[in-house]
Order: sequence, then structure tokens, then C-alpha cells
Amino acid sequence: MNRYKLTIEYDGRFFVGWQRQDSGLGVQQAIEDAVRAFCGDAALVQGAGRTDSGVHALAQVAHVDLAKDWPTDTVRDALNAHLKGHAVSILSAELADQEFHARFSAVERSYRYRIINRRPPLTVDAGLAWWVPSNLDAEAMAEAAPGLLGTHDFTTFRASECQARSPVKTLDDLTVQRLGDEITVSARARSFLHHQVRNFVGALALVGEGKWSARDLAGALAARDRTAGGPTAPADGLYLVGVTYPESEA
Amino acid sequence: MNRYKLTIEYDGRFFVGWQRQDSGLGVQQAIEDAVRAFCGDAALVQGAGRTDSGVHALAQVAHVDLAKDWPTDTVRDALNAHLKGHAVSILSAELADQEFHARFSAVERSYRYRIINRRPPLTVDAGLAWWVPSNLDAEAMAEAAPGLLGTHDFTTFRASECQARSPVKTLDDLTVQRLGDEITVSARARSFLHHQVRNFVGALALVGEGKWSARDLAGALAARDRTAGGPTAPADGLYLVGVTYPESEA
Repeated sequence: MNRYKLTIEYDGRFFVGWQRQDSGLGVQQAIEDAVRAFCGDAALVQGAGRTDSGVHALAQVAHVDLAKDWPTDTVRDALNAHLKGHAVSILSAELADQEFHARFSAVERSYRYRIINRRPPLTVDAGLAWWVPSNLDAEAMAEAAPGLLGTHDFTTFRASECQARSPVKTLDDLTVQRLGDEITVSARARSFLHHQVRNFVGALALVGEGKWSARDLAGALAARDRTAGGPTAPADGLYLVGVTYPESEA
Repeated sequence: MNRYKLTIEYDGRFFVGWQRQDSGLGVQQAIEDAVRAFCGDAALVQGAGRTDSGVHALAQVAHVDLAKDWPTDTVRDALNAHLKGHAVSILSAELADQEFHARFSAVERSYRYRIINRRPPLTVDAGLAWWVPSNLDAEAMAEAAPGLLGTHDFTTFRASECQARSPVKTLDDLTVQRLGDEITVSARARSFLHHQVRNFVGALALVGEGKWSARDLAGALAARDRTAGGPTAPADGLYLVGVTYPESEA
């Protein structure tokens, strides 16, 4: 068996999410179908992050085992040929060790969230960003965000369906930046709870609207209660932008 | 009559172009329908640039005359409410002089063209950029582009359907820049011929592929013959990004 590491881009609007599901086409299934069409292998495509329906990826990582030792460019190009018509693209295929596991070897995941903060509705960015028409104070958001950094019980920002064993995670980065009408929230951690980034962004938007202070945000975290956490930001603006592995397994 | 200057954003994929046409919905018609739904006026919405089907705008400008003296924010918000479901958004409405004419008062139009130059197909940028899988030398393109600047007979880069009286135009800027996988071509002139920017980009891509030298590009211009001009780049990557007016009419 030959293990390939795939770096994958997709437009989440056209999928029920990463995972194979009965309710529609998952990105995983689209790629598994392409693998079978390419080389006949009924192989599992294991992803680093199980993104939800509507969530995009600029650099999701997955691994797949193929019976034959194909050149990496052949794997990439053949999968893309069989993915034609689907909004998913294999950016690269690389040979990986048998020990490499896209999900369990990952040491860091990076997400980016795009807010477009303006009164007129979106056109070219519809579905690709969260439209917030009321004025957000991005500086207040940026000042409050570091209050969530570090190791905490993040129950307040965890979806009820979350399957993680523990609500304790370590948040390494949460940065808010405004450039014109666009506010970008960047988040980085070893791993995230279900909806964690979207719940962070929903709460930060309350801060931006002036409804919450930085202290309210810290209080919400301390409450360890989802009902204290504010709304969940829509999937539209969320992008999985990178997955990091130890250098020896990169 | 009260004249309003509208600044407009739209996703060209959902329209047959700016102009009202029998073949489908033009952006102009969508806005005229919204004007009528808002205040009952059967008013002409006159745009600065007649973008083609599939061409996007981040800041198209138009003017419209309304019988009543509405507050500008009301005009913007009411039109956006009636445009709901269409991929067009009124970014601003301003009161303008009766002498202001979106098309004839304009002294400069700016376009941007997005090329994504990578082997894997596009996902989130599909329809919003031109996918060029073969490697383009953006430096060669950037070096050749200034050969088109200035006042010339641009027949080589003019669509056969072009209705302009003269093929002579003055090109004030044509800049090529690469940032990662993305190559941006910026063009600025008082006015453009039909397909002029897309034909520039099609020819510059030949330079980027190494099929044409800068001298070939200059030779094509000198030929004053559309058949000497190379292909027309697709509408997907083209954005009308700005229209400039004399300060007195801004």
C-alpha cells in the first residue's frame, strides 16, 4: 500500500460537509468516488478536519492508501479529472509514511473567518463570507479576542452535537483584523470543538456591536455553558486554511 | 426631477450583462424594476459601462431621475430591498447635478482582471477568475504590457460587434502583477472598446506562455486587425472596479 497525502480545496456550498453522509454529497465521498474511478481502489479518504456543510477549505489535508505506486502528479491530475463538475480540487498529492495520519498526526489547524461589514448586501461574496450590515467595532473585537487564548474548558463555544471526548482545548491564536469593509478572524489550535470557531465569531460580533464587553466575553467562557455563548456565525464565512504536521511527517 | 448617482456591485454570472436585453435579465433591468417597485417611477437607469454577460462590477456607476426628493439612504436601502434575491447591490446613492451623466461625464474607467494560474481547477473562485493551468511568466507579461499604453488605433483588440465610432483610444494604465497563484491585470482609460480588456488579457496570456514576445504584442497592435490579436479571455475574470468623474460632478 502507498499512502498519499492530499491537500484539498473546496467550496462548501456544494457539499453536506466533509464527511460521507446519507443526506447528500460529502467532499470525502466525492474524492472516494474519484479514487475508485481513477484506479478501482475502494479506499477510505481520511481528512484532518470534519468541516460542516457550507464551510470552505483552502487547504484541507487528507490521506488515502492506493494499491499501486502512482506518480504523485498522476494522482493529483487523475483525481481532478474525475472530480470535474464538483467544486473540489486536489491542490497537491505527496507520498507519505505509513505512520502519517491526516487527522491524528496533525499538530495544528488554522481557520479563517471572513465577515463583510457593510450595509449593502453581498453579491460576488455571497456564500463566501458572512454579511453583517450593522456596524462592527473591529478594534473592540481585536482587544477582546485574546481573552480566549490558552487552555480552557470551551463548553460555552461547543456545539451540543460535538463528539470530542473533552471540552478542554488550547487556543494558540485568535486575531481580528479589518481591511476596509472586511473583517478577518484567524484562529489556530491543535484541534477545535464542533462549531468552536463559528461560536467564537458569533460572540466576537456581539462585542463588535457593543452588546458585549471584553469582560462579558471572558465571563461567557468562564460560564462553561453553551447558552451563555451568543449566536453561531453562519458557515458561509469559514475556511479551513491549513493543517500542520511535525516536520518529520510533513 | 432629482438625479441620483448610484454605485453598484454585481456578480455577472447571474445576468446577460448590464444592458436590458430580450435574452434574459440585464442588471439595468433588475435595477429599473426595483426603482418601479420602490416609488412607481418608470425611470431609465443609465450606466457608465455596458459590461458583458459574466463580467462583474465592484463599482459600476449609473444615474437615475426620480420624481420625489428621497433621502439618499432611503434610495439605497429601498432599491436593495427590492433587489433581494438578485446578485446586485446598491453600494451608495448620492444626489447629483442635472448635468451629471453616468456615461458621458465619466473621464476614466478602471477594470481589473483576475487570472488564477495553477494546475488544479478552481473551486471557490470558479466564475470569479480565469483559470489558466499552464504556467504563465507574469514578469514577461508585465514587461510587454506598457507597449500598449498611449493613444492607438486598437482595432486589433476590438470585438467585431463594437459600436464605438472610432477604434482610437488612449490607454493610461496596463499593469500586470503576480501574488502567489493569482495574476492581476489592471487597466485604466477614459473609455474602452468592446472586449478591449479581455482581448488585452488574451494576448498577454500568449506572452505569459512564451508564445509571443513583447515585440509580437506590439506587432499585433500595429496590424490593426482583430485576427492578429490572439484569443479573448473569458468574462469570468473581469471586474469593472471604478468610474471617475470630474471633481465638480463627483
